Amino acid sequence: MIEPRTLPGFYEFLPEKQIEFNKIKDIIIKNYEKFGFLPLDTPIIELQDVLLAKAGGETEKQIYTLEKGDKKLALRFDLTVPLAKFVAKNYGELAFPFKRYQIGKVYRGERTQRGRAREFYQCDIDIIGDGELNIINDAELPTIIYNIFKELDFGDFTISINNRKLLSGLFQELQIEENSAEILRIIDKFDKIGIENVKKEFEELNLSQEKIDKIIDFILIDGTNNEKIKSLKSYNINNDIYLKGLNEIEQVIENIEKLGVPEDYYKIDLKIVRGLDYYTGTVYETFLKDHRELGSICSGGRYDDLASFYTNKKLPGVGVSIGLTRLFDQLDGLGLIKYNKKSTSNVLIVSMDENMDKCLEISTILRDNNVNAMVYMEDKKIKAKFKYADKLKIPYVIVIGEEEIKQNKYTLKNMKTGEQSLLSIDEILNII
Amino acid sequence: MIEPRTLPGFYEFLPEKQIEFNKIKDIIIKNYEKFGFLPLDTPIIELQDVLLAKAGGETEKQIYTLEKGDKKLALRFDLTVPLAKFVAKNYGELAFPFKRYQIGKVYRGERTQRGRAREFYQCDIDIIGDGELNIINDAELPTIIYNIFKELDFGDFTISINNRKLLSGLFQELQIEENSAEILRIIDKFDKIGIENVKKEFEELNLSQEKIDKIIDFILIDGTNNEKIKSLKSYNINNDIYLKGLNEIEQVIENIEKLGVPEDYYKIDLKIVRGLDYYTGTVYETFLKDHRELGSICSGGRYDDLASFYTNKKLPGVGVSIGLTRLFDQLDGLGLIKYNKKSTSNVLIVSMDENMDKCLEISTILRDNNVNAMVYMEDKKIKAKFKYADKLKIPYVIVIGEEEIKQNKYTLKNMKTGEQSLLSIDEILNII
Repeated sequence: MIEPRTLPGFYEFLPEKQIEFNKIKDIIIKNYEKFGFLPLDTPIIELQDVLLAKAGGETEKQIYTLEKGDKKLALRFDLTVPLAKFVAKNYGELAFPFKRYQIGKVYRGERTQRGRAREFYQCDIDIIGDGELNIINDAELPTIIYNIFKELDFGDFTISINNRKLLSGLFQELQIEENSAEILRIIDKFDKIGIENVKKEFEELNLSQEKIDKIIDFILIDGTNNEKIKSLKSYNINNDIYLKGLNEIEQVIENIEKLGVPEDYYKIDLKIVRGLDYYTGTVYETFLKDHRELGSICSGGRYDDLASFYTNKKLPGVGVSIGLTRLFDQLDGLGLIKYNKKSTSNVLIVSMDENMDKCLEISTILRDNNVNAMVYMEDKKIKAKFKYADKLKIPYVIVIGEEEIKQNKYTLKNMKTGEQSLLSIDEILNII
Repeated sequence: MIEPRTLPGFYEFLPEKQIEFNKIKDIIIKNYEKFGFLPLDTPIIELQDVLLAKAGGETEKQIYTLEKGDKKLALRFDLTVPLAKFVAKNYGELAFPFKRYQIGKVYRGERTQRGRAREFYQCDIDIIGDGELNIINDAELPTIIYNIFKELDFGDFTISINNRKLLSGLFQELQIEENSAEILRIIDKFDKIGIENVKKEFEELNLSQEKIDKIIDFILIDGTNNEKIKSLKSYNINNDIYLKGLNEIEQVIENIEKLGVPEDYYKIDLKIVRGLDYYTGTVYETFLKDHRELGSICSGGRYDDLASFYTNKKLPGVGVSIGLTRLFDQLDGLGLIKYNKKSTSNVLIVSMDENMDKCLEISTILRDNNVNAMVYMEDKKIKAKFKYADKLKIPYVIVIGEEEIKQNKYTLKNMKTGEQSLLSIDEILNII
């Protein structure tokens, strides 16, 4: 006999959790499709040289590799590389802008700690342009995020928006471009390590006190979105990249408003930079206001070129990703996942005796009327049958015995209130 | 630059195909849930010793293995072994009968030939009893299959049903039990190799001509379901296992009828045995009447004990599986997949000029009214915008220009008929 074990970092929910997980996933899909995104489902296994074309360092260490025959294979570690491969491979078949969503499992062999899964779902959307892509697309993504988290109802949230070009412009103005990668890395940690440590790390880079103050002032620009844009304009930086960034973020903010997102839900935050050097313009992070400690629950940004490792075509894009497994696990830990349902059934039909004929007949009528219904088929005491409904939190039980069959009426019990009444099938259908 | 390649045997559909694939998957899920099955989603990677507890021979050769740290891992090759592991592991948490569905990718490193995928979806349902499981459950599964394939509408189909105990009883009667594995293997090939070859292979087993004739007579029993049951009764075999099988198949057939499945759709077929020795009672295969050459598109059966490799608990079950990737690929090859939609959008909103404000506003109104809508945001000629709608087969285009904005009415073009008219937003909502 072998002990049935599941690997650490790999999730396998009980059905009641899986039902809630799926509900969230379905809301995400519905909203992605509402904005016209097309589904994609790429393989989990790819050739190593294809998957790792661009990867390096940390990513490569975390990867799951395997061999089959003479082929070196690997499991995907995100959904962006497979998208790049797919678009490069099928360029001629696609209509651009290509809007795709993909929801699927990805694999990273990280050390497991709370919230660090090795197998987890990502829910990605990206809009890929052919050569160019209008900046208004960058306003559509926060609108989709807003719609999703509004519907998911996990509490108030903020979509923080920045544009990398603004910081690049600032660094150029301050003539500290050669340090920009390190400076961005430090800014990225601002929330985690606090202002004093940020200053200390800047000092370790040998930045002058004046420049450090200027950076700090800049990333802490405060006010409403319009006030922040005004401040950014008054900064008097005139290099091309800064002006471009300024123009972009202004358009993004304007158009989010036009798309009907209430101002409370999105704000310019000049500290948001995202870890990846991949991003070249707009960047996003999303925070639950009451649970900032969770970090960003939905992030992304604009990139100049999706698939330069696979094709000469220039394919700029913008995308965001929800790390669904991690998010679900964290929300569950906080008690924010409500287990209203533990079953997919609305009704359990039980017989008073061994005769199941009427139960089967009634179950078919219910299903034909789009009611999810289950017949309890085992030969158990009536108490055991009710216990089953209770354990699965099935809202209604229909009881059928000789008397009911004679009268052509059936006992419907509301499992929440305990109420029960003798009703015709039509009356039952009206209630359920 | 690296050539963007996808591995042979791994599918990656263009969005138009993926939309149809998802539609089928959703119909399967809807029907599984209609009968109260609960969702399960187990990891794709498991420990080798757990996954291969029961496997052997052919299965083991096909498996994808990998190592991470000091752990020997493998990719799941079906959804039954993970179910067994899950039920054994979570026995105390589950309500029995445990009805679960799982739809997910599985991995087999087979030689690739048409229809032989290495990564493919299986859509499984199983009902697991605790110690025992009423035979009526065996009637529910064909009912679910009927509902699914009726709704999928790929043409007429037959669910073929047999009970392994009948053949075991026959073999006992003929005193050829020691050959039963080989005989079953030969019967399983009947459709493929034909009656003459079956006889020849029986002869090679040194069965007497009389016994061969008896087996052939038996597996070719003809008539309606009731006539077949009558014939089976008149066979005058009186060993326990035969009588048990006879009683079971009679109950299954009776109860399928009570569950409202028209008789045309299910029939006793004594040639159906299923490859796996796993099954111990009822077995199912499903065939498209006009495309019998596809083989069974949905198969399964009853087993005595799900998880004997992981637990001492006796867990009898009954299940069926749809090999969705293979089925989809085959139906697509036959032209039976209709590509009515190439987009998730019902409307494309385009601007006559660069001003997109009204387009964004209208898109939000449409989405708030549950219409999937996309704005064409790129600065292209109006012709290019229509071409985009055309390529994605989006049914409606709304055109907005200065004139429209003044009148507060917008041009709605039906892309199928070419009709267009100037309408208010309410009128548009009524039409779409």
